[in-house]
Amino acid sequence: MVVILKPKTSEEDVTKIISYVEDMGLDVMVNKGVDCTVLGLLGDTSRIDPDTLMLNVHVDRVMRIAEPFKKASRKFHPEPTIVKVGGAEIGKEGTFTVIAGPCSVETEEQIIHVAESVKNSGAALLRGGAFKPRTSPYSFQGLELEGLRLLKEAREKTGLPIVTEIMSPKMVEVFEKDVDIIQVGARNMQNFDLLKELGKTSKPILLKRGLSATIEEWLMSAEYILAEGNPNVILCERGIRTFETYTRNTLDLSAIPAVKRLSHLPVIVDPSHSAGMSWMVEPLSLAAMAVGADGLIVEVHNNPAKAWCDGAQSLNESQFDSLMKKMRAIGKHVDKEIV
Amino acid sequence: MVVILKPKTSEEDVTKIISYVEDMGLDVMVNKGVDCTVLGLLGDTSRIDPDTLMLNVHVDRVMRIAEPFKKASRKFHPEPTIVKVGGAEIGKEGTFTVIAGPCSVETEEQIIHVAESVKNSGAALLRGGAFKPRTSPYSFQGLELEGLRLLKEAREKTGLPIVTEIMSPKMVEVFEKDVDIIQVGARNMQNFDLLKELGKTSKPILLKRGLSATIEEWLMSAEYILAEGNPNVILCERGIRTFETYTRNTLDLSAIPAVKRLSHLPVIVDPSHSAGMSWMVEPLSLAAMAVGADGLIVEVHNNPAKAWCDGAQSLNESQFDSLMKKMRAIGKHVDKEIV
Amino acid sequence: MVVILKPKTSEEDVTKIISYVEDMGLDVMVNKGVDCTVLGLLGDTSRIDPDTLMLNVHVDRVMRIAEPFKKASRKFHPEPTIVKVGGAEIGKEGTFTVIAGPCSVETEEQIIHVAESVKNSGAALLRGGAFKPRTSPYSFQGLELEGLRLLKEAREKTGLPIVTEIMSPKMVEVFEKDVDIIQVGARNMQNFDLLKELGKTSKPILLKRGLSATIEEWLMSAEYILAEGNPNVILCERGIRTFETYTRNTLDLSAIPAVKRLSHLPVIVDPSHSAGMSWMVEPLSLAAMAVGADGLIVEVHNNPAKAWCDGAQSLNESQFDSLMKKMRAIGKHVDKEIV
Amino acid sequence: MVVILKPKTSEEDVTKIISYVEDMGLDVMVNKGVDCTVLGLLGDTSRIDPDTLMLNVHVDRVMRIAEPFKKASRKFHPEPTIVKVGGAEIGKEGTFTVIAGPCSVETEEQIIHVAESVKNSGAALLRGGAFKPRTSPYSFQGLELEGLRLLKEAREKTGLPIVTEIMSPKMVEVFEKDVDIIQVGARNMQNFDLLKELGKTSKPILLKRGLSATIEEWLMSAEYILAEGNPNVILCERGIRTFETYTRNTLDLSAIPAVKRLSHLPVIVDPSHSAGMSWMVEPLSLAAMAVGADGLIVEVHNNPAKAWCDGAQSLNESQFDSLMKKMRAIGKHVDKEIV
Repeated sequence: MVVILKPKTSEEDVTKIISYVEDMGLDVMVNKGVDCTVLGLLGDTSRIDPDTLMLNVHVDRVMRIAEPFKKASRKFHPEPTIVKVGGAEIGKEGTFTVIAGPCSVETEEQIIHVAESVKNSGAALLRGGAFKPRTSPYSFQGLELEGLRLLKEAREKTGLPIVTEIMSPKMVEVFEKDVDIIQVGARNMQNFDLLKELGKTSKPILLKRGLSATIEEWLMSAEYILAEGNPNVILCERGIRTFETYTRNTLDLSAIPAVKRLSHLPVIVDPSHSAGMSWMVEPLSLAAMAVGADGLIVEVHNNPAKAWCDGAQSLNESQFDSLMKKMRAIGKHVDKEIV
Repeated sequence: MVVILKPKTSEEDVTKIISYVEDMGLDVMVNKGVDCTVLGLLGDTSRIDPDTLMLNVHVDRVMRIAEPFKKASRKFHPEPTIVKVGGAEIGKEGTFTVIAGPCSVETEEQIIHVAESVKNSGAALLRGGAFKPRTSPYSFQGLELEGLRLLKEAREKTGLPIVTEIMSPKMVEVFEKDVDIIQVGARNMQNFDLLKELGKTSKPILLKRGLSATIEEWLMSAEYILAEGNPNVILCERGIRTFETYTRNTLDLSAIPAVKRLSHLPVIVDPSHSAGMSWMVEPLSLAAMAVGADGLIVEVHNNPAKAWCDGAQSLNESQFDSLMKKMRAIGKHVDKEIV
Repeated sequence: MVVILKPKTSEEDVTKIISYVEDMGLDVMVNKGVDCTVLGLLGDTSRIDPDTLMLNVHVDRVMRIAEPFKKASRKFHPEPTIVKVGGAEIGKEGTFTVIAGPCSVETEEQIIHVAESVKNSGAALLRGGAFKPRTSPYSFQGLELEGLRLLKEAREKTGLPIVTEIMSPKMVEVFEKDVDIIQVGARNMQNFDLLKELGKTSKPILLKRGLSATIEEWLMSAEYILAEGNPNVILCERGIRTFETYTRNTLDLSAIPAVKRLSHLPVIVDPSHSAGMSWMVEPLSLAAMAVGADGLIVEVHNNPAKAWCDGAQSLNESQFDSLMKKMRAIGKHVDKEIV
Repeated sequence: MVVILKPKTSEEDVTKIISYVEDMGLDVMVNKGVDCTVLGLLGDTSRIDPDTLMLNVHVDRVMRIAEPFKKASRKFHPEPTIVKVGGAEIGKEGTFTVIAGPCSVETEEQIIHVAESVKNSGAALLRGGAFKPRTSPYSFQGLELEGLRLLKEAREKTGLPIVTEIMSPKMVEVFEKDVDIIQVGARNMQNFDLLKELGKTSKPILLKRGLSATIEEWLMSAEYILAEGNPNVILCERGIRTFETYTRNTLDLSAIPAVKRLSHLPVIVDPSHSAGMSWMVEPLSLAAMAVGADGLIVEVHNNPAKAWCDGAQSLNESQFDSLMKKMRAIGKHVDKEIV
């Protein structure tokens, strides 16, 4: 941590600040500049709150040097993390994993139909919402436990591992038993109690980026899970909130190379929720692969026009199949084989 | 709901769309324009998903007319809601309620000292964090249940009702028993399971606006609580996330008159978290009163420089006292008496 | 335009509003709903200011139906616009045009060296800054006219047409004479006087998207140029301003398919300025091609570490060459041949 | 400037970097930490581009210490700048200056009527648009020179100095001759050529904040004017662009105390354009005064419903008069006398 003191801070005050910091068990190196004095704080500064230092009338600015995340940082874990689920190895170099399925589980026929179809097109996992976070209390909230049951049936029929969203710490036990990848939605990215509970399981966690979460905050939420002992975290970029209203959210594809550089965790992209329009899913999916994502989670429905929610952003089965064909072709040139 | 069809949609297709909508139990009025046909959907459109209509190849745009919130809307409840807690009547015209206290409960001495001091300065309720949402798993997470115990002691000593944040549905029972106003933090504004549980209690809920929540989404989250039967919701503007980095968040004071117009619920302002700098708390507090807020929730600490968290944004006790004096003077001219 | 009246508006008031609108030469169709009356305004509504209608106490909301842009709209010009410059045909289906060169023109050796190198790698045009918009008045402002002279020499030596930024209407005459594509920077996207002057020329204009411009505002700025009679507008997405600070700006690749749907104008991507980090240029460039852009404008420098400005975001010549090779391979699968 | 080197940078490489920096005429102080080495760059670092340092493979991060603005900084000019126009002394402690008038100059009757009315209510200056920046080329663009002429007549009749917006460097001569305060609109805040030309005049400049300009960028634009020798800059907060769509823009009132702390320049608020709704102007104006602004620029029209533009955000004359009365009452308690 670097502490910049105000111009004309007296020798005496500098000494006071130094001893205050040393009392916290840190070493201090002093830079006497022409305009101002700069202190370099050495040691484990993670316990220091920069805001508190700012209270000192002589302190002009405080700047972090070390990243606030450790277990999620590539600095300390150069090797990429690979999350194994069923046959898939998410994050493995040279591979690209596609998770597909309907926004909501609706009926046995629907989920099994879609599961078989996306499997034939090459999806490695099945997604489907049982518990749905909806902005309005009057919107369809999902089939809940019945939805889980139907997902398990689809898994039995097709062998595809299942991915579905959790909304409450009360459900962790059930999800740990029944689900292959537990999804944490954008709205719960900083639901720290939920993250801690999930950190105590060994289940792979798909952590979506919050609508207004910086990349650093997103990695800090992953750190919550890792810190509790669960190393199986998969990050998912799904669009951030900006001033632009043409698309529902703005897919931040720059975040993919950024995360790859900062962290060893796998990162995939959700092109369906960000755009909110099915015709945008294909170009954004191809771009996600080209930019270096480890995979996709995409909405596919057997009959989007009749979908119980978010139909407008779902591909139908043949659109998904043709998307997969295009991705296979491009994948060859960016070292991404769909497995 | 208004549905705009694409230019040159055939008679036949228009008829199809109309019957599709009528099948959903709605009436349709048709506008044949020069460029395009516009359909007016009449009846309870809250069950219709505009996205689904968008899927029809002939639909150009769909626009909501009715607000999506009902119980929170002033249209259907012209009279302002007044939330009674102890002696305070939050939201009552002509009054202004101040909630004050430390970011975190630290020790018995600290919380009681601050409680007595803010009471003497005119605060009506005591705030203090027992369970703290922190970006980093390595930061101080609050004294938790011990913190609650200390808050109750401070209440006993001073008679001030207590306000503190809940982080998990698992704690609802305890909070319902011990706390006077249950705070939902910005990060949990769309933690719908938590909102539903709180809606089943009769406790006043202080619902902070999410960092990237629109005013409409904020009111929809209030609707979750109201829909479950709890009418005692107090809204709290605490700053939104923007591109500006000088302040931690951008306090959106325009949201106060906006909420007052859209809803009957009381709305207060948190000037401490938005700015993140103690020297900004006074001007923002005076502005909050002038813009028409029903009250304030402000951080006060007996020794900010030693605060366990967020010290930099806390007023000390004498700063708070002088702020209260200034607010009393201004209040006379904007019909806001501090009670 | 659709005008929604407040509930309980009297017959008489409805009639008044209708005649007010009809006085503006529009036809009105009336929808009497259960809650409220909806008016459909038919005719050329582009001269009506929705804000003015909002002033009527009985008006609840006003919504535009027609897009505010006409000449830039694909609705009225289904065929893509192709801008011809030298050998390049920017916007032609099946092609991908690459513009490359240094952020700033520095010396004759530098600009000619880079020009020859990017030409050998397959760039179709040379970019280089002569007049530089800099946040600080104390930063290097470009070689100005001398920079133009050096660009022209590089063009003579290599045959590459030149692209450079204009900053003042006073320079339009000079640029019209000397430059092949006149670039309007993000900061000047709504410098309407400049746009009008450029609309009076016949030169191709590269119109960068403003940092906080919606797609609609961006197309409206293009409309300023088109409305004056210049059809040769090329749009350029270069990143928007969001809360995220890891990247300098957030490249909005969703804007590419959006613009393609809304407009017939060509749209290219600037991966250098958005990210501000050279190591991000390659993945973003590949993504830009995959998402459907018509081309790229990318910074290349013979010695980035010694560049006079923005060195950190420039590729060196061999990095650019390897990027071009990768793009050629991917291009085959997304119908984009680099010409 | 502080340069943080990557962990494990060799002695030799550290030495190389140091000499590279020293070659630029700076002194370097070295901090050898446990994880990494930190360099403190001393001297005039304004000529150094942090991006260029970032190119060195051993550099992890570069952080500015000194603010990039000098003439605008309060550090070097503790005394507030007072801009004298007619009787007004904008920025003088204890005073509050109100600029009022219509969005656009429409007719002689209109501008003179409004001028006399706002003068009677206590406005110190008259505003009115002659050259209008409009998003659409098809919207009313202002009366231009004829508008200027009418403003001058209103000045003659009432003695009120006039404030109007300039849109092109070509008009600087005319404005310098005819106008009392030259306004630079939000869209031109980084039109650097225009700023430089205005810096060469001695006219007071009202510099509006750009829609997505940080406070630092805003002060850097002021620096452009100051650097050319014109000290008479008045800043104007008019709302920033955020994700919130209920208000046209989000008025950032925190920016007022921030600017007051960072700079010696006067700063006023425009409550009309930010909200875009007349009923929000009063509460935002009172808040602007309470938060510490030096004045207001507010839209007033004799007949908003018939205004040629932005009628929806204009107060009528009696609303303005009652606003002034309320501000006078509150002003007494925040040391702001309307003069």
